[in-house]
Formats: sequence, C-alpha cells, structure tokens
Amino acid sequence: MPPLPPETTGAALAASPVDPVALTAALVRCPSVTPAEGGALVLLESLLMAAGFECHRADRGGIANLFARWGRRGANRSFGFNGHTDVVPVGDASAWTCDPFGAEIRDGWLYGRGATDMKSGVAAFVAAAVDFVRDTPPDGAVILTLTGDEEDVAEDGTRALLDWMAENSEAMTHCLVGEPTCPARMGEMMKIGRRGSLTARFVATGVQGHSAYPHRAKNPLSALVRLMDRLDRHELDRGTDHFDPTTLAITTIDAGNPATNVIPATARATVNIRFSDAHSGASIRQWLQDEAATVAAETGVGIAVSVKISGESFLTPPGDFSALIARAVEAETGVTPEASTSGGTSDARFVKDHCPVVEFGLVGQTMHQVDERVEVAQIGQLKAIYGRILRDYFA
Amino acid sequence: MPPLPPETTGAALAASPVDPVALTAALVRCPSVTPAEGGALVLLESLLMAAGFECHRADRGGIANLFARWGRRGANRSFGFNGHTDVVPVGDASAWTCDPFGAEIRDGWLYGRGATDMKSGVAAFVAAAVDFVRDTPPDGAVILTLTGDEEDVAEDGTRALLDWMAENSEAMTHCLVGEPTCPARMGEMMKIGRRGSLTARFVATGVQGHSAYPHRAKNPLSALVRLMDRLDRHELDRGTDHFDPTTLAITTIDAGNPATNVIPATARATVNIRFSDAHSGASIRQWLQDEAATVAAETGVGIAVSVKISGESFLTPPGDFSALIARAVEAETGVTPEASTSGGTSDARFVKDHCPVVEFGLVGQTMHQVDERVEVAQIGQLKAIYGRILRDYFA
Repeated sequence: MPPLPPETTGAALAASPVDPVALTAALVRCPSVTPAEGGALVLLESLLMAAGFECHRADRGGIANLFARWGRRGANRSFGFNGHTDVVPVGDASAWTCDPFGAEIRDGWLYGRGATDMKSGVAAFVAAAVDFVRDTPPDGAVILTLTGDEEDVAEDGTRALLDWMAENSEAMTHCLVGEPTCPARMGEMMKIGRRGSLTARFVATGVQGHSAYPHRAKNPLSALVRLMDRLDRHELDRGTDHFDPTTLAITTIDAGNPATNVIPATARATVNIRFSDAHSGASIRQWLQDEAATVAAETGVGIAVSVKISGESFLTPPGDFSALIARAVEAETGVTPEASTSGGTSDARFVKDHCPVVEFGLVGQTMHQVDERVEVAQIGQLKAIYGRILRDYFA
Repeated sequence: MPPLPPETTGAALAASPVDPVALTAALVRCPSVTPAEGGALVLLESLLMAAGFECHRADRGGIANLFARWGRRGANRSFGFNGHTDVVPVGDASAWTCDPFGAEIRDGWLYGRGATDMKSGVAAFVAAAVDFVRDTPPDGAVILTLTGDEEDVAEDGTRALLDWMAENSEAMTHCLVGEPTCPARMGEMMKIGRRGSLTARFVATGVQGHSAYPHRAKNPLSALVRLMDRLDRHELDRGTDHFDPTTLAITTIDAGNPATNVIPATARATVNIRFSDAHSGASIRQWLQDEAATVAAETGVGIAVSVKISGESFLTPPGDFSALIARAVEAETGVTPEASTSGGTSDARFVKDHCPVVEFGLVGQTMHQVDERVEVAQIGQLKAIYGRILRDYFA
C-alpha cells in the first residue's frame, strides 16, 4: 500500500466524515518530539477551525498547547477530550524498519513514533468530535484540550491549558483522556484513577571500624537491613474498593565496601512505593520517617530520609460517567472494560482537580518502542467508540 | 644521637651481653620486605652460630627460614621462641620523616619499618636467649624459629619450619611468640589464643521487574535484608571462659541499581565473623547455609553462599605456662598482663598444633604505619622479660 500524501491540509482533512487514519498519518508525519510542536497542533487547529471550533493557543514556557471548543462557553454540559501530540524520541533510528515519521502502513498496521502514544487517540477523538457536532449538533459544548508537553516534565502542558481555562472561564463538566489503556485486547480496560507514587532514599551514617570489633563501630548496614526488612514486611493495606494493594519495592542498597575487615561508615538504600487511596504522599512520608527514627534510636545509626512524591493517588469513583463509557466500549467491541487504577502516570492527574475524568484508548503495547505501530482497524474502532460516547452523553 | 654503625657483623653483635637495641637497628637496616630475606636471617644465623647455637635453614618456596637450637635435640624441656624478620612494604616513602630502613634513633624512639613488628621482638628474644645460655647454661634446649614469611600468605614460613622440625625430630615443649601484644601500655596484655575468622559472601538471585508490580518480580533485596537482619540479630554466644563473644559484621551489600522503577535481578552481601571456641568454621558455615536456605524458601529467591575460613579459633588454656609468663611480665614492669584471645592472626595458629603457645611482646601501636617506631627503653625491658621467663622456665 503506497504511503498517504505527505501534504495534507487541515481543511482537506476536515472533509466529512473525517478519516481518522489519514489524520493519524498526517500527525505522525509531524516530528513533534517534546518540546517541538512539529506542525501537529497547527494542523489540528486549522482542521478544527474549518469545522467550526473556536480555537485558542495556550502556549507556555516554549510549549504549544491548543484549546478548542464547539458550542457556547459555560454550557451546562461540556464534554472534554484531553490528549497530547508530543512524542518521545526515536531512540536508535537504525533499529527501526521504517521512517519513524513516515506513517508507513504495512500489513494493516500504521508505523511511526506516536502511532500508539497517542496521535491515533487524538485523531480518533478529533474525528469523532468533528463528525458529531456536524451531524447532530448537541445542546452543550465539546472541548478539546491538546498539549505538546506530556512526555517530558509536563509543567507547561495540560496544566497550562487548565490554568488558561480557569482564567478564561472555560470548563469541562466531564473529561475523557484518550491515552492507550488496553494491555492486550481492544476494549478490555479503562482507567478511573491511579495509585500514587513516591521514591524514598535513605542514607545511614554510622561509625567506621574493624570488623573484628563491631562494638567499637556502628554499622550502618545493621540499621539499614533492619529498617528495610521492617518496611518490606509491613502491609500498608490490602487494597481498597478501587485500588490494588499499596506496594513497596526496595530498588537498591549500596555500601560499595570491598574490604572484608572493615565496617563501612555509610550505606544507602532506595525504595519505591505505589500507594492506594488509603494513604497520601504525606502520610507515607511520615510513616517512613517514623520507622527510620525508630531504627535509628535502636541502633545509634543516623538515618536521613528524603522522599520525592511523584504523584498522589486519585479516583473518579465508578458512576454514571464511567458506566456510559463502559457501555459505549461494549457496544462497539463486545468487550466489557475493567475499571482499573493500575499503571503509570498521565495527565488525568491534573484534570481530576477540575472535573470527573476517565481514560480510555486503544492497545498500548508498542508505545515508546522501536517500530511503534497501531492496528489501522483499531483507529476506526476507537473513533466509533468516542462518537458513541458523545451521542450518549448528550442524548 | 648519631646513627648506629651500618656495618655490624653477627659475631660483633654476639658480644656479651647482647645489645638488643643495636641488634634491632641492624635488623631494621635489612630491607626484608616479604618475601626478601634482606640479610636479616643471615645476620641472625652468624650471631647465633657465634653464640654456640646449632643452625639450620628451612627455606621453602623461595622463603628463607632459620631454625636455631642451643642444647641437645630431644631434651625434656625445650623452650621455643617464634618470630619473623619480614616486614610489610614501606608504603608512601615520601610520607616518612626518616629513611624507613635507616634505624634512626630520635627522642628515645627507634624508627623504621619493622621497628615494632617485629624486629625489636626478635632482637629481644635472641639477645635474651644468647645471654641466658652463656650465663646460666640450662638443663634443656632453647629453640628459635625465625621466618621470612609472616606478613604475606605465610604458607612457607613458620609452617615450613614446623614441617622441617617434624621431619628432623626437633620439638619445642612450649613456645612464646614475640609479636607485639600490648595495645597501649607495656606489659598489659598477652595472648593465649585467638578467635576464629571467616568471611561469607551471599549472592541473591531473583526475578527482575517493574517496581510498580513487585508481585510479578522476585526481589533479591527483600530476601537479602531479611537474611542479613536474621544473621545480625542472632546471638551466636555470649563469650566463653577465655573468649569474647562471637561477632558478626555485615561489611557490604550491593545491588548497584540506579533505576527507581526497576527491581533488580541480583544483589550481593558479605559478612565477616570472628568466632569463639563455642564454634568451628564448619559449624558456622552450616548455620549460614541453613539460614540462607530458610530465607530462600520463604521468599522464592535463590541465595548462594560461599564461605572462606581464614582460621579456626585456638586456645592455650591458662595454666602453669601462662602464669610463668605473667609473673615475669609483672616482675619487670609492675603490670599484670591480661590473658586475651582478641586481635588478628599470627603464626601462633600454626605453633598451637605442636605445643602450648603464648604470645607476648611490646606495644604495637605504630605497626604497619608510616614512621613505624619503637620506644628504645621498651626493647631492653622486653629482653629483660624474656630473660626472666627463660630463667624461671628452667629453674
């Protein structure tokens, strides 16, 4: 199958019905590696303007962000989609079997960086939204928040969009993030929240000495193994209604002492914790500090703890909104999606402070990999699901 | 004070009474860094032959060793001294304030590599033995075993001497090793044995995985901290009649994993154990293997254990021999020596298989250091102690 035409304007792509595969391909051809805009948001802006959306750029800190609304500002019902057009770097370009920005279609798959994460998702909801407002104009608004900074620090991406919206009295009543959510099979999972995540680093400082006379030294490793074993054995919870149990993993311990006749002065350890909504970053930090203080008092070894909270847990409790999405997925795929809170982080962690948010997208198996690719059929299926969600939402 | 004459023959040094300071200086001037003989044993051989000792070289594997006996072979009472003339390397020569092989005397101290460990000790017992057999010829034998390989692997040093003695029907009824034994004050400690020593290395092998899903991995660090904490908390004994309690020190733990989102596949730990006569190397090894197997079964992590036994514990139980030595020390110094089994290893670990052995020598504070030095007055005091021991032994 020959490649799609490389020059495709937004206006041409807006022709009814919008072809989500052509749009995905056009987006993949934009080299939008974070923080580069790469032409992706400019293309979407021209398409959406041609389709009657009101567009605003909410750029910040060198990052391009696009806000687009069809319908009245401040409508009672404003359905939002959120997604990103930036992609992770190509990595080892020579390992790819195709041009990472070529959007080549081969054996039913569209190849390219961002094909899965998440230009196909963006293309599917843009296509669905444009068709929907054109075919059955709703009593309400459809809002698209599109960022160029999700894959990196995400300081000036969806956050900037949400800040801009707050300043301009724009709001979504519900939001769907179009990230890939299905582990292996289309339709099998949606995300209604995420566990929190933090990393704690421990530095134990004792007194160096000869290993024949441990009572004259203070062994930081004695303190560290005692503390790590306590943390590792402690059951923080058994899971909650919507969350898997909190997990703790010791990821490294290092003393780096080659001398078997010497007790070292210092040793270090790191643990990574993924926590349910039974905890907060602050409560976990307090627990770690209390445990470290207990062991320090028992052993006489100083233990410094530094905690970096990557994200708090959050949850959109199952209800009408998630049920609506599940029904649409089931109607289009025959698969009932599990409402999960597993997995890594996404911009849903920012959106959840503004309105109920759920994530649903296609199968994410090749995201960030060499030869990233999406099954062409899934793009149309995803557009159909998003379109059904819009119709049901405004019904 | 001007340096002593650099050319001093064994015969000249044998003049009555033997000057242990001049002999120490002459020995320090021999650059006998293991395995080099450096002239030290040749000098002692000529001195001892001049004094009527029967001398044999028991060289092995490129190492020089000297056996010397005054009196009849197979005497009922054969008092032995053991010592070494080899020394550790100079290290950073530019850090010394004197020639490490110059034997400079300054402010009452004699400087040089081996001044403390243990050319002064050898000079003191050689001087005491020569004077003793000359002044009051005993009814028995005085045997000196002098090696050039104590500081290194010691495979071909005192072991070679003892092998040679067994082959030639030579035997000591008791032996005194002249190593430095006093921590800070002349006379305060003799050694009647030593704890055993071993080093155990553990390699824990689990299954690598994402730190968000520890149940899908097997964390080797969980197993290792559990095992190390068990070992570290276990009281192997509370000491025995003549031994301090067995000690265990974790000397290092290393995983070397920089990624906080990854559980590593492998982690390592090392412990060093100094054990009393309540245990053997084999019993400790069995205990370590049992504990590792228990934790491996609990965690599903493989734990390999390798144990290197550096030495078994040994003891010359307090009795007439140690009492004799303690009385002599007390008579010459006014200090009652503690009968200790503390400290590192010495050639007493080989001698103990042949006859009762005790160690007594001067203060060892600067041994192996830059500007190693011995208080000149202590050399004469040590000779006097050794002389009194010989007189009392044969009285």
